[in-house]
Amino acid sequence: MTEPLFIIPLWADLLGVGLGGVQGAMFASGFQGQRRLDLLGVAIIGILIGMGGGLIRDLLLGQPPATLQNNGYLLTATGAAIVGMLLAGLLNRANGLIVGLDAVVIGMFGAFGTSKALGLGVPEVPAVFIGVCAAVGGSILRDVIMGLPVAIMHVGSLYAVAALVGCATIVILHACGVGLVVAGLIGIVVTAVIRVLAVIFDLSLPEQRRLYRRKVAVETTAITLPDPGDAANP
Amino acid sequence: MTEPLFIIPLWADLLGVGLGGVQGAMFASGFQGQRRLDLLGVAIIGILIGMGGGLIRDLLLGQPPATLQNNGYLLTATGAAIVGMLLAGLLNRANGLIVGLDAVVIGMFGAFGTSKALGLGVPEVPAVFIGVCAAVGGSILRDVIMGLPVAIMHVGSLYAVAALVGCATIVILHACGVGLVVAGLIGIVVTAVIRVLAVIFDLSLPEQRRLYRRKVAVETTAITLPDPGDAANP
Amino acid sequence: MTEPLFIIPLWADLLGVGLGGVQGAMFASGFQGQRRLDLLGVAIIGILIGMGGGLIRDLLLGQPPATLQNNGYLLTATGAAIVGMLLAGLLNRANGLIVGLDAVVIGMFGAFGTSKALGLGVPEVPAVFIGVCAAVGGSILRDVIMGLPVAIMHVGSLYAVAALVGCATIVILHACGVGLVVAGLIGIVVTAVIRVLAVIFDLSLPEQRRLYRRKVAVETTAITLPDPGDAANP
Repeated sequence: MTEPLFIIPLWADLLGVGLGGVQGAMFASGFQGQRRLDLLGVAIIGILIGMGGGLIRDLLLGQPPATLQNNGYLLTATGAAIVGMLLAGLLNRANGLIVGLDAVVIGMFGAFGTSKALGLGVPEVPAVFIGVCAAVGGSILRDVIMGLPVAIMHVGSLYAVAALVGCATIVILHACGVGLVVAGLIGIVVTAVIRVLAVIFDLSLPEQRRLYRRKVAVETTAITLPDPGDAANP
Repeated sequence: MTEPLFIIPLWADLLGVGLGGVQGAMFASGFQGQRRLDLLGVAIIGILIGMGGGLIRDLLLGQPPATLQNNGYLLTATGAAIVGMLLAGLLNRANGLIVGLDAVVIGMFGAFGTSKALGLGVPEVPAVFIGVCAAVGGSILRDVIMGLPVAIMHVGSLYAVAALVGCATIVILHACGVGLVVAGLIGIVVTAVIRVLAVIFDLSLPEQRRLYRRKVAVETTAITLPDPGDAANP
Repeated sequence: MTEPLFIIPLWADLLGVGLGGVQGAMFASGFQGQRRLDLLGVAIIGILIGMGGGLIRDLLLGQPPATLQNNGYLLTATGAAIVGMLLAGLLNRANGLIVGLDAVVIGMFGAFGTSKALGLGVPEVPAVFIGVCAAVGGSILRDVIMGLPVAIMHVGSLYAVAALVGCATIVILHACGVGLVVAGLIGIVVTAVIRVLAVIFDLSLPEQRRLYRRKVAVETTAITLPDPGDAANP
């Protein structure tokens, strides 16, 4: 019924983990002032973004986490986080690069999640769900650990919707007889393109943009809260 | 020793998921102003409340998540969330209905969790624990994802205690030889009645009521934080 | 290749759970004012600290959670939490004791996690990772549930690093042919000593100390936010 022995090639999986690690570290390095993370914190965020989606995917599938069966994943994620930190120092404020990397990464995680689920015989709807969770799970873990508002709930720009459409594309193509590898590649492109277009054309609802500005304001407020001493002479 | 092949009937499981989805969406729709969620956000909360408890239950049992073996759960949860959103528009501020639905839902999730655990041969104490986690797990996930204070830690009204007593009732009845189906039904009633009575008679400690009022104040403060622009002309 | 049938003795596992429960309850009892937790809240924190690390370890290993196969764990964690609450009443502000207990507990959880992973044939790097997650996982769950900033991201004092070095020591000793029991005991000592020394000599970066002071300020601010009524007459 489904392909026997569907396996994501190790190099592709490690590529996703590595890109995720770079992207996570660049995000984490962006915090300045009192919220600045040290080396360990940046590495944790890199590992969460690089490996978190795959962990959630395998927990939902009831499989032992693939990223912990092999030394390569953690070494790749940690190494990529260090590279991301160094790149962040060089390319400070390279917002476009972060968005582009992020789009490819969520596309890959979503495609791997949905493909693995279909390969294991999971029905169509939960296969899409697992793909979306794999795509956005790392960023949810990152936001919860860092105490930030969870991005997919509040920030627009069609973040989760891009993953949803890409994963649904894979399921539909697979139902039409397209092989999982080809369907997965198309799904990655669909997700990444939607995500990048959404950012370029700022496709978010007006209230969401206002919310985002306010969120930034809240964070700034949190960062600049006065010391007890400062409060005495405002 | 325990019943062989204990299975929660699909219709009962889907009923719990559907009621949870309605209840979650009505809760989510209650946020106004900048915290207002869009369609996707409401659907996510509906899925979390409808399916989150079952996911946590199956992870704790080391079983593949039952809600992802079948297209019906996600379709039910999503459909129920949409219904809940529409109902929320009609029955704005129908607080009693939300409380009543919530009481039945945590009763069902707790009973399913404890019954499934007992059916798999889990000892009594962890069977109660898994039931309580199944009952309150969805609301914990909801609060963490939405950045709200976790309700069972701060809000009184015997929320987790109601689930605890209901699940313990099931374990005790089962130890006395009562079948799991009958014991489970009694457990649902026990939990729901305790929860509703607690809300009606406002059974919470004085400090907790004060805390709750303050929490609301904190949320209001967070919502009305000034824009950077507003700060210039206060 | 690895030892067959490596099993953590039940008494050692329960000792870790019990110490964790005591430590968690003492931490939770430290909250005064509006943040004060009731009996249930303290018990939840005790269970999270006592059992959370083991749960995360077993989820990452794809094993059914050991702490839910036996009535003893939950009874121990809950009983220890009650003892911790009473001790906290007697030994208010016994900061040294909390730090010391905490150091031993993260050492034990880390050693059990890494040893179990190695015993199951997990490679070296993920075995260390799983040990660190087991060591700090309980405190991450605690901070997320309580809405506090996650300690390992922001507070210095080499918290996660101590677990990392201890778990890596176990892997290296095991690779050199040392048995898992001896390696595990050495790992516990290494982690606990690093952690205690870090606290004694205040080994944290200057920015982290400042951050910590500010975090306390933020928490104080959150606690003392005025009632709507207070705001009218400041």
